Amino acid sequence: MTNMTQPWIFTARCPSVVGTVDVVTRYLAEAGHYIEEIQSFDDRASGQFFIRIEFLPAEQDAFAPEAFDEAFGARAADFSMEWNLTAPGHRTRMAIMVSKYDHCLNDLLYRYRTGQLKVEVPLIISNHPDLEELAKWHNIPYYHLPVSAETKPQQEAEIVRLLDEYDIELVVLARYMQVLSPWLCEQLDGKAINIHHSLLPGFKGARPYHQAWEKGVKMVGATAHYVNNDLDEGPIIAQGIQEVGHAHYPEDLIAKGQDVERITLFNALKHHVERRVFLSGDRTIILSH
Amino acid sequence: MTNMTQPWIFTARCPSVVGTVDVVTRYLAEAGHYIEEIQSFDDRASGQFFIRIEFLPAEQDAFAPEAFDEAFGARAADFSMEWNLTAPGHRTRMAIMVSKYDHCLNDLLYRYRTGQLKVEVPLIISNHPDLEELAKWHNIPYYHLPVSAETKPQQEAEIVRLLDEYDIELVVLARYMQVLSPWLCEQLDGKAINIHHSLLPGFKGARPYHQAWEKGVKMVGATAHYVNNDLDEGPIIAQGIQEVGHAHYPEDLIAKGQDVERITLFNALKHHVERRVFLSGDRTIILSH
Amino acid sequence: MTNMTQPWIFTARCPSVVGTVDVVTRYLAEAGHYIEEIQSFDDRASGQFFIRIEFLPAEQDAFAPEAFDEAFGARAADFSMEWNLTAPGHRTRMAIMVSKYDHCLNDLLYRYRTGQLKVEVPLIISNHPDLEELAKWHNIPYYHLPVSAETKPQQEAEIVRLLDEYDIELVVLARYMQVLSPWLCEQLDGKAINIHHSLLPGFKGARPYHQAWEKGVKMVGATAHYVNNDLDEGPIIAQGIQEVGHAHYPEDLIAKGQDVERITLFNALKHHVERRVFLSGDRTIILSH
Amino acid sequence: MTNMTQPWIFTARCPSVVGTVDVVTRYLAEAGHYIEEIQSFDDRASGQFFIRIEFLPAEQDAFAPEAFDEAFGARAADFSMEWNLTAPGHRTRMAIMVSKYDHCLNDLLYRYRTGQLKVEVPLIISNHPDLEELAKWHNIPYYHLPVSAETKPQQEAEIVRLLDEYDIELVVLARYMQVLSPWLCEQLDGKAINIHHSLLPGFKGARPYHQAWEKGVKMVGATAHYVNNDLDEGPIIAQGIQEVGHAHYPEDLIAKGQDVERITLFNALKHHVERRVFLSGDRTIILSH
Repeated sequence: MTNMTQPWIFTARCPSVVGTVDVVTRYLAEAGHYIEEIQSFDDRASGQFFIRIEFLPAEQDAFAPEAFDEAFGARAADFSMEWNLTAPGHRTRMAIMVSKYDHCLNDLLYRYRTGQLKVEVPLIISNHPDLEELAKWHNIPYYHLPVSAETKPQQEAEIVRLLDEYDIELVVLARYMQVLSPWLCEQLDGKAINIHHSLLPGFKGARPYHQAWEKGVKMVGATAHYVNNDLDEGPIIAQGIQEVGHAHYPEDLIAKGQDVERITLFNALKHHVERRVFLSGDRTIILSH
Repeated sequence: MTNMTQPWIFTARCPSVVGTVDVVTRYLAEAGHYIEEIQSFDDRASGQFFIRIEFLPAEQDAFAPEAFDEAFGARAADFSMEWNLTAPGHRTRMAIMVSKYDHCLNDLLYRYRTGQLKVEVPLIISNHPDLEELAKWHNIPYYHLPVSAETKPQQEAEIVRLLDEYDIELVVLARYMQVLSPWLCEQLDGKAINIHHSLLPGFKGARPYHQAWEKGVKMVGATAHYVNNDLDEGPIIAQGIQEVGHAHYPEDLIAKGQDVERITLFNALKHHVERRVFLSGDRTIILSH
Repeated sequence: MTNMTQPWIFTARCPSVVGTVDVVTRYLAEAGHYIEEIQSFDDRASGQFFIRIEFLPAEQDAFAPEAFDEAFGARAADFSMEWNLTAPGHRTRMAIMVSKYDHCLNDLLYRYRTGQLKVEVPLIISNHPDLEELAKWHNIPYYHLPVSAETKPQQEAEIVRLLDEYDIELVVLARYMQVLSPWLCEQLDGKAINIHHSLLPGFKGARPYHQAWEKGVKMVGATAHYVNNDLDEGPIIAQGIQEVGHAHYPEDLIAKGQDVERITLFNALKHHVERRVFLSGDRTIILSH
Repeated sequence: MTNMTQPWIFTARCPSVVGTVDVVTRYLAEAGHYIEEIQSFDDRASGQFFIRIEFLPAEQDAFAPEAFDEAFGARAADFSMEWNLTAPGHRTRMAIMVSKYDHCLNDLLYRYRTGQLKVEVPLIISNHPDLEELAKWHNIPYYHLPVSAETKPQQEAEIVRLLDEYDIELVVLARYMQVLSPWLCEQLDGKAINIHHSLLPGFKGARPYHQAWEKGVKMVGATAHYVNNDLDEGPIIAQGIQEVGHAHYPEDLIAKGQDVERITLFNALKHHVERRVFLSGDRTIILSH
């Protein structure tokens, strides 16, 4: 499905050598494609090159990604380049997992409904029944999958089955308050984003606002990161903070933190679905204007 | 030394009971003193009451703090209240300790010279000779006290002797890059403020910007805190942050962090010298407008 | 309706003279009421004194505001003091007026539903039918009152009739995109809060994001202010900003500004319903901790 | 003068057409130059294309900009492209103009002295003698050029003569409190940056903090912009803000605004000397990572 005014997105990575930009831009120029936006980054730490381009094809309706892959691939092979094309109007299929706190869910559904967040949300999964009505109002199937220590393996298997069934590309843990098993972490590696309610790596683990209060901090924060197999240690995509004072008890921090949590999560998701986030080891490269 | 237009500052603390505000404000009203500003806080966590008042005495020139203490003390005793009076125009005698990084020192001296920071700076102490010229330009004695593992006890004894000699009320560790001994920490307990270049309790200890870079954080911060005997664990007074991105290597974080370090340190010092900071266990209460 | 753990709120104002704090705190102490929080401000510009106190009555269930008014009034008269008592658990009756943009409405209803914003919302008024479904989901009556140049007098009369009928204390203009007539402004004077999508007094009037884009600003903002009879000139309660760049066209500014608009509006409403906002000429005093 | 590890900077602009990126990147690739960083922007509003590249020449010592200009120019002509090369280690020759407020001057000199701001400062010009000592300490010639309504033409002619004599590329008005004549504005057009102490276009002209206080704003700001012939209307490069409250009188705003003024000015200068700022009509394009 193409669109007359929106660009295709090209992203790529490879080892840093002379000519990495040229191999891409020359191909686009020769094909008559028009570059609207280009950013690159050479990570000295990893020796890797990253690039992101938005381009308008020479003939929008005739553009064939398969032909692009074949023709460009012949040149990219010399650079061991991995690349990806995203069509205009493509909407990432995103599942939301949530428990009882609904501030992130409410925010995501609002932005989804109003088109701020260009995704599809085919389903919501929760270990509690509480938020079903909110899902219903948005006409999104809501799967209530309760979980206990004993039933966790079955519950997680059911989650993975649903993600498969609905052809999900991205999972958002929008305050899903369960520790994922190593098996589920592995299934979700690189395709799930979690919002943690602290400025990681500070206050990892449970009840971070209570931890923050005990330390008497003057700022609380939130961190959106990819899920990997080390709890609260996945690559960081976005962070946000909120000033607090002595008059704020833990319950106040919880309330005040909600705005920064949902805005931080949205920022991370927006970067991700716009194909701006690249992994370089445990760090993220974000090619943004 | 009094001043016709600036107020006296009254601060106090005691256990929370009915009448704590009244015992103060009634006394001031009966004496004809004019309250310009009042803030109080009852800390539910510690059961302590804190109050700060700025008042203009009925007769500025005739105001005698000794008489105040005696008359008010008779009433305050019922509340086990501890209190303090600070005269208009009082300038805290503040020693600065520094190593080689001069961004905090330069900033403090600028604010001292221009009257933004109402203190006296009778001396600067450093374990390096590098910053003597800067001190000289501001006409402040500079003590170069080199230190090694062997000479630390003598060096620290000399520091304490100098603080005594110069009648110092407050010590600022303005990027003094030495670990203080438990003995010196004890000497400075509650009368020294340190600037740490991270958002504590994250990235305690050495090279916090390098630690932050390794974790791929999107924000770096600074924390000004009182010194106590637990390294980088003293009560937090002020914090600040700075956004960073993937293109910032550790040396960039060091450079970018300088502004937030010096502004955070200044904010903490301003609160302290204006008698706005109270300790409640390991947390600070800051009574500000 | 009282509550065992929440305080009564006392606010007052009068000309600045000696004894203004004492007349209040002495009365409270003598009555055995416990002050949890106190802030005052003397505005040098207007010569006015402002105070806000949260107190727990000596006997919560027996506290009678009428008796307070009578007994305290006898003393307050000497100071020409105007005062106000707000009961614990009191919820301001707030009407929301809106047109088609729903980001502020959605946010307010979320905070209302979850208890973050302690108000009642008895009705929503709109000049468009679009947002009725959202109102319905929250079980709030939705009045669609279309308006044209000819029908404005009748439509505004109907608005005022509804505000009366529902006993409304506060009106929120949550992106209500109609210029109010001087008559309606007068009716709402001091009891309506508007959110304007610029950092006032910059970019008054229509299409502020377009104005901002034309000037090439690097920050856009939002301002929540009381309505008075001078368009976009009422006393400012809260402001917020958002960084923007050259890649953001007017439509991007509109999207990016939504978060700062709704958070700024919420901050202003929270201050207002907690009785923290005082008017001093065209400026607001906000007594907050 | 070359440097083994720092890149050359290439910047260019031309009308937006297919192949603008390619003509640059192909040339660099064919010459064996290594692109470390690339950003472009197509301004839909003006139909202009802007690009900035940092590259390491194939042979650092043998790189000849004249040869580059000739060879690349043959290709660039087809695109009506204007371009510029900046050598590694090039330091912009920057004159500072100042009156009596020294917070910006002190900050710039600190950053100059410590290498944060990669410029040369061959001279300081002031209409007052006050800051000569500060200049002296940094070993920078200080020209005291007093000015009155009658002597303005001569004084300004002398300024221009000095800028010529010292071969100045950039003039910083670091709180130079004189209105420049249209003649001087024209001389400085595009090569002078001013810091104005408000969030332009709000509070243009004199005493912006007093204007801001009168309006009761909750934020004050600063704007760094190019000088053009419309006072305080030149293209904006950077802006910053500072929260303020009712307790801040105009003199407090002046003090609180100093930090945001100097940081905003520094941010603008850093962008300018790193060749990141492009003019597109009255708006700036800033190509930054």
